Amino acid sequence: MARTAEIISVGTELLLGNIVNTDARDISQMLSEIGINVYFHTVVGDNPERLKDAVNIARSRADIIITTGGLGPTYDDLTKQTLAEAFGKKLVFDEKEAEEIRTYFSQSLHSHAMTDNNYQQALLPEGCTPFHNACGTAPGCAFEADGIHVLMLPGPPNECISMFKNCAMPYLRDLSDDEILSHNIHIFGMGESLVEDKLRPLMLKLSNPTLAPYAKEGEVRLRVTAKGKSAQECEDLMAPVIEQVRSVIGSCIYGLDTGTLENTVLSLLIEKGLTFATAESCTGGLIAKRITDIPGSSKAFLGSAVTYANSAKADILGVDPKLIEDHGAVCRQVAIAMAKGARDRFHSDMAVGLTGIAGPASDDTDKEVGLVYCALAVEGSVYCRELHLGLDRSRVRTSAANHALDMVRRYLTGLPIESWES
Amino acid sequence: MARTAEIISVGTELLLGNIVNTDARDISQMLSEIGINVYFHTVVGDNPERLKDAVNIARSRADIIITTGGLGPTYDDLTKQTLAEAFGKKLVFDEKEAEEIRTYFSQSLHSHAMTDNNYQQALLPEGCTPFHNACGTAPGCAFEADGIHVLMLPGPPNECISMFKNCAMPYLRDLSDDEILSHNIHIFGMGESLVEDKLRPLMLKLSNPTLAPYAKEGEVRLRVTAKGKSAQECEDLMAPVIEQVRSVIGSCIYGLDTGTLENTVLSLLIEKGLTFATAESCTGGLIAKRITDIPGSSKAFLGSAVTYANSAKADILGVDPKLIEDHGAVCRQVAIAMAKGARDRFHSDMAVGLTGIAGPASDDTDKEVGLVYCALAVEGSVYCRELHLGLDRSRVRTSAANHALDMVRRYLTGLPIESWES
Repeated sequence: MARTAEIISVGTELLLGNIVNTDARDISQMLSEIGINVYFHTVVGDNPERLKDAVNIARSRADIIITTGGLGPTYDDLTKQTLAEAFGKKLVFDEKEAEEIRTYFSQSLHSHAMTDNNYQQALLPEGCTPFHNACGTAPGCAFEADGIHVLMLPGPPNECISMFKNCAMPYLRDLSDDEILSHNIHIFGMGESLVEDKLRPLMLKLSNPTLAPYAKEGEVRLRVTAKGKSAQECEDLMAPVIEQVRSVIGSCIYGLDTGTLENTVLSLLIEKGLTFATAESCTGGLIAKRITDIPGSSKAFLGSAVTYANSAKADILGVDPKLIEDHGAVCRQVAIAMAKGARDRFHSDMAVGLTGIAGPASDDTDKEVGLVYCALAVEGSVYCRELHLGLDRSRVRTSAANHALDMVRRYLTGLPIESWES
Repeated sequence: MARTAEIISVGTELLLGNIVNTDARDISQMLSEIGINVYFHTVVGDNPERLKDAVNIARSRADIIITTGGLGPTYDDLTKQTLAEAFGKKLVFDEKEAEEIRTYFSQSLHSHAMTDNNYQQALLPEGCTPFHNACGTAPGCAFEADGIHVLMLPGPPNECISMFKNCAMPYLRDLSDDEILSHNIHIFGMGESLVEDKLRPLMLKLSNPTLAPYAKEGEVRLRVTAKGKSAQECEDLMAPVIEQVRSVIGSCIYGLDTGTLENTVLSLLIEKGLTFATAESCTGGLIAKRITDIPGSSKAFLGSAVTYANSAKADILGVDPKLIEDHGAVCRQVAIAMAKGARDRFHSDMAVGLTGIAGPASDDTDKEVGLVYCALAVEGSVYCRELHLGLDRSRVRTSAANHALDMVRRYLTGLPIESWES
């Protein structure tokens, strides 16, 4: 039977909203990779009573408890003491860990001196497996008590995640019988409820693998998860389901485990040896920003002309000012002229041009907020979508950027570009 | 007595580590601003039994339960049913919400058909206060039962946070007799530990108002929170503390409740009737994106030349190719030429130019990852900062953008620009 883990993150800064709990996300991802179920995350402050309560709840519903945080040298770092007490373990001084801490301080660039309470970190529960901290001073550890495995990791994300990979994963792999693997199917151009309508019969029928949809910033993701004795068995279980999803959803699927539209587009561009540029008005640089978030994007992405002002559309991209005078800045003709202008100025193989009204106010015309024209210029052809993206500024911008990327993807994979099935 | 809230985030995608729980962070921040304690966050999957268990634990230790997620139209969205059942409420069809959903579909996303399961979203617990969803179709709601207030919000962050601000905050404020008000003091250019060092005596002395620092993406924020019988009483308590902070921290304070550096910069530009443009290499459009996130930014922002390729730096901005040949693309001279080029091409009063190595790999030179030159060009003058921003790509880009905005702010407020006190 698969084991069940609960992650208890200790830190008042999490409850005050000063930081976001990336440790729990990253640990959960790695746990699912080795077939350990996670049914709950709990976040609790630097308070021993409430931590003890959380631990008592966790031990009633999980057989692996993983804590993050509260292992440091300051007076509010109480995780080790509290967990040891809850499981009836004494804390003993670990000379090897003390030596590690001494070494860390003698080697590091840190200007601050080692203090007595740094030695407190070398106190560990009796009989535990110490986890060495490669990025800091606080060691972690694991012990078993009452049939429950308790793993304690430091809070700072770089310390926590490197210790989890290097120490906790090997410890946990030894406990697990099953493999669990997931694939994410990425969809753009079809709403979550329509995706579910089309796939409900399949989803209800399945138990292993399972199939679950979720929406994310104008996109839909379908997660296929299989459990088996080996990675290969999981893959064999998932393959026919992924095929069935493909046959139902069709060309709105833009990738498998690719993460984002911009990843898919960048990979296609690099694969085909093509270069790309953007001309952005309403999106204001968002497409360029998303593409250059990706390391190595300079292999295909040449740049963007963010021409927010009408004069810049003329000066930088060579859009005929008469077009804007006659039709306003938000029209099909201007979007196409921007795309062509960007392709010309950046000497790129492909370019997109976007002009629209992101809101909340309209421009001086009677055009509605959310109206966006998105054009794609390639050698010898142009394409343009007219979009109506609603009233929320952030959503209009995100959707417009998604559509631009989708047009590039469709062009590069030989699919219809201006209109698309749903 | 201060109320205690628990946040229950519902979603298997959180437990699988597919997404990070930003909703809990953002809600926690806002709760702390109105003096509501948060002692626990719980994350649970799309599973009614486990959600019920989590609710029963929460009701034993909190008097406000806030759920996020599981309100959508798909079959695994079970939050409303589970919470209503746990508190003995019937679900009733809300015609007004059904109408809102119909309107939403008729106005936007014309490629997505409305399906029957969208109507399920109009089922709400009897006697509840509906929360309108300004960014999507799933309404939220609040009800009171057994002395506990239950608030349900959708999971997608834009929907969740706008609903929390617009609907949940007023609801929660009405529960308290006391007024609690906060101000945020925004600081850039001084690290968190130095800010703390300088303010520790003041922080330890204060009880009402309180003063708490937190770090956020290379910036520091200080939150002043006062409790009183009226808004005026709170303001009177906070005013002298804010003055004391100003006298200690000085010109690294860029704003009070302004939210972001780009908000401060845009307000200053509009106030002074000046226009602005950017020339971005390593930031790849991030500065333009951040400025155009703000409605009305077209009043001062003309555009950006995202010149990722070296040829684009020459073609679009007129940077002398010999400069790049002699010094490489990442140098003071190129940053200055980019800033001047952008000012010239966009005919703006001011422009910044950034060139650097965001990583993870360096360029073909021996320059280190994280080296960024950030230049500001104004009528008759140029300024340039040489920055060493570390190894993390996302952090390098964010910090570089912050520095560019900080230089503009300092210029517009008559402060030293290239170097700055800390």
